[in-house]
Amino acid sequence: MSGRLAVVGLGPGDERYLTPEAAVALADAQALYGYGPYLDRVPARAGQSRHPSDNREEAARAAEALGQTAQGVSVAVVSGGDPGVFAMAAAICEQIATGPDTWRTLDVVFIPGVTAMLAVAARIGAPLAHDFCAVSLSDNLKPWPLIERRLDAAAQAGFAIALYNPVSRARPWQFASAVERLRRHLPPTAPVIFGRAVGRPDERVTVTTLESAANEAADMATLVIVGTRETRVIERPGRLPLVYTPRWIPRALAEAIA
Amino acid sequence: MSGRLAVVGLGPGDERYLTPEAAVALADAQALYGYGPYLDRVPARAGQSRHPSDNREEAARAAEALGQTAQGVSVAVVSGGDPGVFAMAAAICEQIATGPDTWRTLDVVFIPGVTAMLAVAARIGAPLAHDFCAVSLSDNLKPWPLIERRLDAAAQAGFAIALYNPVSRARPWQFASAVERLRRHLPPTAPVIFGRAVGRPDERVTVTTLESAANEAADMATLVIVGTRETRVIERPGRLPLVYTPRWIPRALAEAIA
Repeated sequence: MSGRLAVVGLGPGDERYLTPEAAVALADAQALYGYGPYLDRVPARAGQSRHPSDNREEAARAAEALGQTAQGVSVAVVSGGDPGVFAMAAAICEQIATGPDTWRTLDVVFIPGVTAMLAVAARIGAPLAHDFCAVSLSDNLKPWPLIERRLDAAAQAGFAIALYNPVSRARPWQFASAVERLRRHLPPTAPVIFGRAVGRPDERVTVTTLESAANEAADMATLVIVGTRETRVIERPGRLPLVYTPRWIPRALAEAIA
Repeated sequence: MSGRLAVVGLGPGDERYLTPEAAVALADAQALYGYGPYLDRVPARAGQSRHPSDNREEAARAAEALGQTAQGVSVAVVSGGDPGVFAMAAAICEQIATGPDTWRTLDVVFIPGVTAMLAVAARIGAPLAHDFCAVSLSDNLKPWPLIERRLDAAAQAGFAIALYNPVSRARPWQFASAVERLRRHLPPTAPVIFGRAVGRPDERVTVTTLESAANEAADMATLVIVGTRETRVIERPGRLPLVYTPRWIPRALAEAIA
């Protein structure tokens, strides 16, 4: 008799982004696993055990959650945003791939959520309305030259770029280096959006340009969106500007890129 | 006295994906605008007017919604998935950019939702867990050679690729052509996921390979995810396989790409 494992996306940090499907999965779980600050967002329920762990213990957390599920426990593993975007879903899959064969028979569901780039984009307009990509600037699991190669490819081909994990205490120089790299391909006036803690009381969303972006404060709770050559800013009296990338592209520019 | 315009993401086609924030915005609206099939998902409320329009009338729909808002009406414009991803948010911004100055003073909010690629990825594991991109295969608003250039750039640089709008009646050959293009860069065994109508009763999710992908049925309600060289498939007895892209990348491969 085995349990069920739900890998749950909480969305950005407020319950108004939590989907009904995710809320049901959290309520049904007997045991909750996750990075401490994410787990803290889930209201306590009687009879539910809670197992917070550190940010860097994803593999161990995934293995423990699968082991509990195999023993018949109904388990939820939580991620901020969407669990499939630079988060716990891959760690769970990696453990199933390498773990006991019986883990392949378990009932495992992944419950999507609003990932950070969508929440930040919504706060400021529609900067991701044309083709776009998501790149993690963490070089813990991939080498920095590969990240540079991807930034080159994305900027040259005209993708808007969402940068996840721009900065951490252990990675202080990577964000400024990425901005420098993008300046090889994009005009200094390309709009750049910083979204910090969207949906939380200390939310802060600012708009700057690629030229000034390296001086802007970013941290682990920040998601950065870099626009394309075509991304526009609409100034509005008394409000944040709107930033959007048009859905169409001028033929001359298209020919220059292609 | 002006109203308020909410540009609302409904998520995939089931209310279990509708965020509480979106539900409140829909309930508060006096007038609802959107593509007919999306509007049909919103339960009727007394006193609310409904204004369905065709898929290709996005600019006119946006202008009408803004005009109503300027007259003091509380308006919601709905999109499936997330309004900022190949949907209504950009059409609203484009109209504000070119419309009367007073439209820049309006209270406009964008409410994010779970976009199709996140819902399809969640159904099958974690294919978007590493760097990824989203490309619309519609060449209505951009020329086909530019789409090819972006597919080349994304595949060569090792991004997983979510393909929106793969096929329509007016665009019958583009999807097969995109698959051919990707085969220049990726192995024939690269996993490809077809997700149709995720969250609806007729949902269908299948996994195939790049070699066989052009023969698979796709339509306007289908979202396709093309994996990378590193994307893995875990076969499971009696269940759909799991497909995931590891978060780390082998150094030899990284050096080959960079």
